[in-house]
Amino acid sequence: MSVDAVELLQQIEDIGRDFERGGWSRHVFDPAERELVAWFRAQAKVLGLRVETDRNGNEWAWWGERGPGAIAVGSHLDSVPGGGAYDGPLGVVSALAAVSRLQAEGFEPAVPIVVAVFAEEEGSRFGVACLGSKLMSGSISPERAAALVDRDGRSFADVASKHGLDAGGLGRDDELLADLSLFVELHVEQGRGLIDLGSPVAVASSILAHGRYRLVFSGEGNHAGTTRMADRNDPVVAFGETVVAAARIAGKYDDSDHAARATVGRMVPVPGGSNVIASRVDAWLDVRADDDAAAHSLRDRIVAAAYEATVGRGCTLEVVEESYGPLVVFDDALQRRLLDVLGDVPVLATGAGHDAGVLGEVLPTAMLFVRNPTGVSHAPSEGASDDDCRAGTDALTAVLRELAGVPA
Amino acid sequence: MSVDAVELLQQIEDIGRDFERGGWSRHVFDPAERELVAWFRAQAKVLGLRVETDRNGNEWAWWGERGPGAIAVGSHLDSVPGGGAYDGPLGVVSALAAVSRLQAEGFEPAVPIVVAVFAEEEGSRFGVACLGSKLMSGSISPERAAALVDRDGRSFADVASKHGLDAGGLGRDDELLADLSLFVELHVEQGRGLIDLGSPVAVASSILAHGRYRLVFSGEGNHAGTTRMADRNDPVVAFGETVVAAARIAGKYDDSDHAARATVGRMVPVPGGSNVIASRVDAWLDVRADDDAAAHSLRDRIVAAAYEATVGRGCTLEVVEESYGPLVVFDDALQRRLLDVLGDVPVLATGAGHDAGVLGEVLPTAMLFVRNPTGVSHAPSEGASDDDCRAGTDALTAVLRELAGVPA
Repeated sequence: MSVDAVELLQQIEDIGRDFERGGWSRHVFDPAERELVAWFRAQAKVLGLRVETDRNGNEWAWWGERGPGAIAVGSHLDSVPGGGAYDGPLGVVSALAAVSRLQAEGFEPAVPIVVAVFAEEEGSRFGVACLGSKLMSGSISPERAAALVDRDGRSFADVASKHGLDAGGLGRDDELLADLSLFVELHVEQGRGLIDLGSPVAVASSILAHGRYRLVFSGEGNHAGTTRMADRNDPVVAFGETVVAAARIAGKYDDSDHAARATVGRMVPVPGGSNVIASRVDAWLDVRADDDAAAHSLRDRIVAAAYEATVGRGCTLEVVEESYGPLVVFDDALQRRLLDVLGDVPVLATGAGHDAGVLGEVLPTAMLFVRNPTGVSHAPSEGASDDDCRAGTDALTAVLRELAGVPA
Repeated sequence: MSVDAVELLQQIEDIGRDFERGGWSRHVFDPAERELVAWFRAQAKVLGLRVETDRNGNEWAWWGERGPGAIAVGSHLDSVPGGGAYDGPLGVVSALAAVSRLQAEGFEPAVPIVVAVFAEEEGSRFGVACLGSKLMSGSISPERAAALVDRDGRSFADVASKHGLDAGGLGRDDELLADLSLFVELHVEQGRGLIDLGSPVAVASSILAHGRYRLVFSGEGNHAGTTRMADRNDPVVAFGETVVAAARIAGKYDDSDHAARATVGRMVPVPGGSNVIASRVDAWLDVRADDDAAAHSLRDRIVAAAYEATVGRGCTLEVVEESYGPLVVFDDALQRRLLDVLGDVPVLATGAGHDAGVLGEVLPTAMLFVRNPTGVSHAPSEGASDDDCRAGTDALTAVLRELAGVPA
């Protein structure tokens, strides 16, 4: 008897529900996320795995003695605010289910297998996505990570320390990296690719280049009733023109051959009174495209439109790059091994960032996608059928059996 | 020796400072506003006035026995978020200073004079402006007021009860109204009218018609990276188009002869993640115009543009009227009495709502404006020179001397 991915998902379906936004809100170091991590540790122990927290807050559950050549498999448990139940957790429960299946078969891995849960993958609390894997791989400096603040102004260093992490120990973890030979992440698909292709599972080819920018529109706060329209320097209007321009510009380049996506999902007016012309709007622009040149060009066009709108409204604009992830092309040899095991499954690019993309800088990495019948992600209607979840476990089990098998 | 309005303002300049937004944030029943009310009660007692809180949370400081024919004078102490120091408090301190001046002269009023402080004039916490005067005059139902909620979801009834008000006693206060013969409110000017006219003081003619509407744009939450631009139903873009349209439409009609103002100063995306296409945007539209027909026409044109934008983006729109105040024309006879006392001062219309406008439904009311050198209001740079503040006290003293003098 092995544990079932669908049952594991059911065990956590009530943790971190967001009754205001709908869906789930599970942010790093909040009570819901801590409960999920504790649940993960307990499940891993049931399978006889030994669980460690690394210096950057990621969890590692070892099957077999920790040591060189280990095969890492897993994903994350945090979510965007009001997100879905599958983005992250499906990869974690599938990894546990695959390990359990191999154990039930009496499989004896030739190298250690380790199930990983990465911290703050969504960047929903501290603003930088894949923070745990970026710290571990050295692609963000520990100083910058430590100084990141959440919406309440609390720093990552402070919050992490309160949860038992030594802020002085943050940063690239060479000791851990030396033990890992590769990383495979299974993830719910976040678009409609597999619906159209009629397959429950795919192998990833690449991740779009991805920049996140904070745009600060500054104008002049004033009275909404007494200030003539002609006398206004209203940053909300400059922001509005920018959002419309971003959708128009990205829409022009985004087609079936090329990805060009621009989104503003968060904006905060200051002071934010309904009878006050705002003095400032902070807005977050998310840009993704096929490669670095396309992403930079898309960013530049949108920022140029934002400047034009801002100047036209008598306001000023500041643009801050909050994060940038270049195009990730997954390891070709590893991708071929997965395809050899899985046979004729589709190969798909994705617009979403993942820890497997970040770790691709330091390790061979690969991803499996599981079909999402709504095509929706980062929202409550994100999903995967029970059958497809189990097909994902089947695929991941087969992949681990191959990768951790006795070397030929 | 009488108390000085400028000195009184200095006494409260550190209460409710907002170090995040700049300026002052003083919202009904928050600690800063409570401190201001306590300060007012103490100052009134120094002048020998007897202070009562009415059934709707407004403060009344009586000079002489409470009774029929009383002349009310005052304003409010709350502010918009990050507002200025003069909007509200200047009218309260000027009323106290004027009473003190009359006392120092040995003036004996033929009718009671009562200094009033109205609750929640800005509507910054519970969303309805002039809530205290609207309740007292019966222009909002106690049921509707009781059910209003702040940003934390706490109802006005609950919060008011916690501060000692009997929620069952809210509503039109006929007993109090029967004792009042008229109301005069002094207020800092909220535009550039008096700068251009070169006068420290003006008398008000009218208040623009004023509607506040909540616009709820609903779309489909989804992943910012994986969702093609063509597949999106993004309410942020529909919102952006609406804001731009509102500025364009109001700008077309707003000129030196006609007022037509439209403002969005507050918007909240849901879920509000920076890597998530929002599923909803709540936005607040503030509309003001010369008269009811013009205000409704302006609202209708903007709402039509909002519907067009919303449908075009595959979203839906809901429009809720949060409050509406018709054109207020101040009492003609009272206005003439003020002009007789003050001589050749300008007469100005204003775009800002005031308790004097609300009470105009049940009493003769009048307003005095004091010059604002920046023309800015609802923002930290709102101001009035010390000399102009004292000129305001002079004017208000002269007005009260006339109105409360022995009847001819």
